[in-house]
This record gives sequence, structure tokens and C-alpha cells, in this order.
Amino acid sequence: MASIQNAFYAQSGGVTAVINASACGVIETARKHKNRIAKVYAGRNGIIGALTEDLIDTSRESAAAIRALKHTPGGAFGSCRYKLKGVDESRVQYQRLIEVFRAYRIGYFFYNGGGDSADTCLKISQLSETLGYSIQAIHVPKTVDNDLAVTDCCPGFGSVAKYVAVSTREAALDVASMAKTSTKVFILEVMGRHAGWIAAAGGMAQDRTNSAPHIILFPEIPFDQPAFLDKVSASVKQDGYCVIVVSEGVRNAAGRFLAEVGSKDAFGHSQLGGVAPFIANLVMENLNYKYHWAVADYLQRSARHIASKTDVDQAYAVGKAAVEFALKGHNAVMPAIVRKSDRPYKWSIGMARLTDVANREKFLPRDFITTDGFGITAKARRYLAPLIRGEDYPPYKDGLPQYVTLKNLAVPKKLETEFKI
Amino acid sequence: MASIQNAFYAQSGGVTAVINASACGVIETARKHKNRIAKVYAGRNGIIGALTEDLIDTSRESAAAIRALKHTPGGAFGSCRYKLKGVDESRVQYQRLIEVFRAYRIGYFFYNGGGDSADTCLKISQLSETLGYSIQAIHVPKTVDNDLAVTDCCPGFGSVAKYVAVSTREAALDVASMAKTSTKVFILEVMGRHAGWIAAAGGMAQDRTNSAPHIILFPEIPFDQPAFLDKVSASVKQDGYCVIVVSEGVRNAAGRFLAEVGSKDAFGHSQLGGVAPFIANLVMENLNYKYHWAVADYLQRSARHIASKTDVDQAYAVGKAAVEFALKGHNAVMPAIVRKSDRPYKWSIGMARLTDVANREKFLPRDFITTDGFGITAKARRYLAPLIRGEDYPPYKDGLPQYVTLKNLAVPKKLETEFKI
Repeated sequence: MASIQNAFYAQSGGVTAVINASACGVIETARKHKNRIAKVYAGRNGIIGALTEDLIDTSRESAAAIRALKHTPGGAFGSCRYKLKGVDESRVQYQRLIEVFRAYRIGYFFYNGGGDSADTCLKISQLSETLGYSIQAIHVPKTVDNDLAVTDCCPGFGSVAKYVAVSTREAALDVASMAKTSTKVFILEVMGRHAGWIAAAGGMAQDRTNSAPHIILFPEIPFDQPAFLDKVSASVKQDGYCVIVVSEGVRNAAGRFLAEVGSKDAFGHSQLGGVAPFIANLVMENLNYKYHWAVADYLQRSARHIASKTDVDQAYAVGKAAVEFALKGHNAVMPAIVRKSDRPYKWSIGMARLTDVANREKFLPRDFITTDGFGITAKARRYLAPLIRGEDYPPYKDGLPQYVTLKNLAVPKKLETEFKI
Repeated sequence: MASIQNAFYAQSGGVTAVINASACGVIETARKHKNRIAKVYAGRNGIIGALTEDLIDTSRESAAAIRALKHTPGGAFGSCRYKLKGVDESRVQYQRLIEVFRAYRIGYFFYNGGGDSADTCLKISQLSETLGYSIQAIHVPKTVDNDLAVTDCCPGFGSVAKYVAVSTREAALDVASMAKTSTKVFILEVMGRHAGWIAAAGGMAQDRTNSAPHIILFPEIPFDQPAFLDKVSASVKQDGYCVIVVSEGVRNAAGRFLAEVGSKDAFGHSQLGGVAPFIANLVMENLNYKYHWAVADYLQRSARHIASKTDVDQAYAVGKAAVEFALKGHNAVMPAIVRKSDRPYKWSIGMARLTDVANREKFLPRDFITTDGFGITAKARRYLAPLIRGEDYPPYKDGLPQYVTLKNLAVPKKLETEFKI
């Protein structure tokens, strides 16, 4: 294992404001160990790049371009929503991966994604046992949903959390100004398919002088329409207005998404969107308050301009640690963020086994949610506070952030076979 | 007129990220002329505060609190959507205003708003002629819609423009990453009821390496569905994805809003919202591309965290100039921003007559829009570029911007009569 090999790095699933900071961590760290890792090949569009032999030679990118990844949102190499099936079900895919890995002398596999991607990474880590190809697979955690097991938090989440907290605070000042004669209810829809971490972050907008958001709707709490409408009405009576942060994943008591659109993505997840207008209509029909609603959608997870410094630092650190783990001979593991103290916030990088991470989801603990189900507790605030702390502004030119576009030069193909996905 | 009098200041219409910077300009400048202006009374919720004798004594706020208005979004004194009728139709309202103004020795009236508010300000400026009460009324321009006549641009617009340009650039990087196996079309809905200035700002996201947004839908261009779908399809074929910025005010050839919800506000405007999901459905039904959509709504106009420095400076400057105009004896005027050169950008404050401003709307010139109706021209870029330039970050504490909440102490009422609005 101490011979010189190449590494494969790819991005998977929904991208974030800081996934490229992890890419930067992986590539910069690998470049410091050229005696062990000759090149980092990036898969264009995740694992699909490996299957189709569509590789990017990251050694063709300047040090400055790689550095600029640290402040550039989105997935610089392209991502994918594509889940490998088990070896038994889909042996041909794995044989193809081995064919490509062998052609490029790939000894290290770094996969940057969430829970589904951890499962893909775990399967790759088992290629040695299952199909006799020796490789070390390290998962690099990333998900705005903050729902990965073992790690205290997930790179990508802190920046979305900061975006949602800042936006909620700002929009609350707007609706407070308008409430006397116009808008009384403002609804912000945020991401979080199954777990309410992002919605909870909206609660950080509160301070001593402002009680907005008055209501947070979590996926973990079945929607109770009468209690909700009572709370809207009470908030408007008390403050003159009501700010609501609603997770896209809110369900009714029967477990059905309030705003299910019916389509499903490649992982079999329902594609959501539009719970904000649903809630707005409820408010109008039952209480006759004028409303405004916003759906942050991709804006929240790409908002590198308001990224959390903690998040950027952690995203870089897990990329760096992944390479270091690989160089120490580890396989089937993931750098995890370990919280050592809340105040002052101290963290370090630990090591999680992929078998403990893959296909698991970490929900918001019930004691992070207030008894009435509409707010966050002091315990949640203590957890969230350090994750949104610190600003890490990108460089600007002519009023716009200067994000890097890599050359992303394709490596000339070596194999004569094509692979259809 | 050289005797000591008090001033009335109020905020009107939709608030912005920088309307409080204008309030700061008014109050700080007035405080420098205590020999002429004893106190600035703010109307709680705009002109309604005057009608109901609900006044705030701004002299009770510290210099630091007033200074902090410069970086605080929303309307610190509350705004209103309330338009005064003509003197002939509603003499009782004007008599009430005079009663209140007289009780508080108001000699200066500063009204901070858009085109409808300029009309209110104009009517107040005529009180001397119509009802014999001597007052100087100065309008302080404010509107995210950038549709006021005479002035080169409107305070509030530059910051929304920057928000939309930055968000479009960021979201475009996201969808570009996802397009291979997932989302191919991203739609961002922005404000701009009748004029496409805000939508046009999305076009600033483009640079040499990125052609997003591929399509901008303006209120000034009737929606041409076949041409639109062709362009979406061509963009996806060329780049793999398509980013669309759509104005809430887009209409079909018959002049009907694509997403009219039917309700109207106090000014008789239709309340819009939800054109993004409408466009998304069109794309799905006709082209079967997976989509995501966002509706920025209040987030865009309250986003002080990403305000344009040019905009903040101009918002302050018009507040300051309004007081200076008043002290020079002017009436029925508005400080206007005069562009002296594009590159380098130079501007100064001129003086507009309210009769030239009230109830007029300035639309996006046709030569700011490309021939095909889906993009912006070099001329538009030259106009927009300086308005989004410069960052003016608010102070942060624990990861969140520190916006000020004023004490807003009510002045004890002097009148025995109540007034119902």
C-alpha cells in the first residue's frame, strides 16, 4: 500500500455552499503527499464519472484555482443522484468500476456525500472482499440536512442554518413594518426532507427584542391544524404579525406530506415543494390575514456569500482528514466532527465506521423542540449557536462574488469499452 | 420659516434593506440643525401615525441607535399602505392632519416612499394653498421597483439587484452540478410588479464562463410560450441546464398576469405570487425536465446582509438632502440621484419636482432588453453595474447580524379627539 497510486474523488447528491471546500481539502492535502498519491482524478458527475470513464485531471488546475474552491458553492466537478445497487444485483457495474480503477491505478476512493452516498462508498470499500480489487474508500460527509449518524454535525448544514436564521431575522423586520395595514403573516419554506434541523435554525433569528419566528413547523411533529391556527392568531394579536418557518417535509397525522407533488427522484424520494403556499392559503381561508410567502429552495444551500465560518472550516477539515485517514491505511471510514465543548465551542475530527453511517438518518431530538411543537428549546440553541458562527465572505469584484470555474479537462480515455448508465 | 419648528418623518409602502439608512440620514442631519429643527417626530406606521396622533419621539433614541439604522433593514418606525385621497374627496383627513401638525408645531414633512407615496407627499405640500397650513413637504425616494421618474435610480433597488444577481449566480452553480442526473431547470421568481428592473438584475450573474441566467422573463415583454419553451430546450441542449429569472409581473399577450391570485391591496394593485411554480409546471408538462423553483419574496428586499454599498450611500444621501432642501425653504420636491458618469461611476443629488414624480412609473427601456426578449443588453449592464457595487456588511454577533430595535417611545397625546382610519 505504500506504493504510489492515484486517487478518485467525486461529489454526490445535493450540493452545498461548502462541498467544494471539502474538495479543496482533499486535493490540497493529496498534493502535499505526492510520494503516495500521484494524482487526484475527479469523477465528472459523481460515481457516473467513474462508470463512464469520464475523469477530470485535477493536477491541471492551478493552486490558486483549487484554493478558490474553498469559497465557491455548488459542485465544481458535477454531482449525481445515482445509487449503486448491491454487488449481487448489479455485478456488471462493479466490474466496470474495477476496470476503470485498474486502468487509472486508483487506490484511494473519496466520496463526498450524504447518507445514500455513504452506502455507495461502503460498497466500494468492500470491493477487495467481494471482487478482489484492493482499494481504500473514505467517505467525506456532506449534507445540508444534517441527518448523518455519528458525526455531531454535517458540513453544509451550518451555512444553510446561517442563511435561514439571517433571512428569517431580516424578513421578520420587513413584515413587522408592514403589519399595520398590509401583510400580517410571512411564511418561509426551507429544506429538510425528513429531519427538522434546517427549520430549527430559523429559531436562531429570535433575540431578546424579537420573538419571530413565532412558529416553526418540523417534519418530526405531525401538523396539528387547529393548534397551528390558534398560534398564528395569538401571535398576530400579541405582536401584530406572525413569522412562520416551515420545513418542506411537514406531514399530517396520517404521515402524508402537506405538499406532495407526486414525482420521485432516483433514490425513490418524493420531490417536495410548495408547502408555503399551502400554509398561506390555510391562513387566509381560516383567519383572513394578508400573507407573503417565500420558498428558499436552492438559494439556501448555495448561499456561499453568507456561509458560516465554522462550516467552511469543518468542510475543509473533513476533506483533509479523509486523505490522512487513507494514507494511514484506513478503509470504510468517514471523518466525523466531534464536539468537545459548547462554550467555548471546541471540535476535533474523529473517525466513524461507514457501517454505522450508511443508510441511517438522525432526526431532531424531541427535546430540541418545545412542548407545544412550534419552537426550539435552549438545548437546541446551545447545539446550533456555534455552527452558524463566523463570517467567511468570498472575494468580490464589481459587486459580485468571484467564484471559480475550473478547467475540468477530461482525461483521454484509455478503455475501448463504453458503459451506458 | 426661520423659527424653530419640528419635523415629521414617516415610512410608506413596501420597505427595503436601506429605507432605515434614509431615516438615519434625515435624523442625523436634523440633529445637526437643532436651531431650526427641534425634534423629528416619526409617524408610527407612516401617515397613519399622523392621522391617529401616534407619534414617536426620535430624540429619545441614542446617537448609536440612530447610527445603527444605517445597517438595519425593514422600516424601523413601521410603514403603511395607505393612500390619501384628494382634498375635495376627503377634507376631514386633511383637517385632522393639520390639527395634529399644529399641535406638534410640524413645519417639515418628510415622507419616505415610492410613487404612490410621492402623491401623498405632494398633497401635503399643497396644504398651504388648499387649507392655509404652512408646511414644507419633501419626498424621500425609496422603492425596490426602481420605477420612480426623474431620479436615475431609487434607493432600495441596488440592494435587491445585488441580492438577485448574487443569488442567481449561486443557484446557477448548484443546478449546473445537479443537471446530469437530476434538476435541469431552475426558476427564481423576483419582485417587480410592472417594471422589470429587478428581473434585469438577474442578468448581472452572467460572466465570461457562465451563461446563466439563460432566460429572463420581464413584465414589459408579453409571455410567448412557444419561444420560451424553445429557449429552455436550447439552453438545456447547450449547457445541460437552464436558469430562469422570472418577474412576478409577467403577463400574457392579453395583459393578464400569469399568476394572478385575485386579491388586491389598499392601492388597488393585484397581489401577485407564484409565477415560478406556474413556469415550472409548463416546463415539466412540455419538456419533462426536472425542475426546482424559488420565490425570493421578502427575502430579497430585506437582505441587508448583502446590501450594495452604492445603495446604502445613496439611501443615506437622499435622507440628508431632504433635510437640507427643507432648511433652504423648498417644498414639493424630492432629492433625485443624478448619474454623472458610468465608468468611473459618479453621481450627485439633484432636485426633482413632485409633480414630475407622483403617480408615474418608469419602465425598463426596450433597448435594455435583448431582441429576443429573454436577456439584457450591454446598455443595461452599464446602467446596473455601479448600482450593485460594493459590500457594506452589517456587524455580526454570534453569527447573526446585529440589527437595532428602537425604543420607539410614543409621545403622550395632546389632542382629545380620536381619529379612526
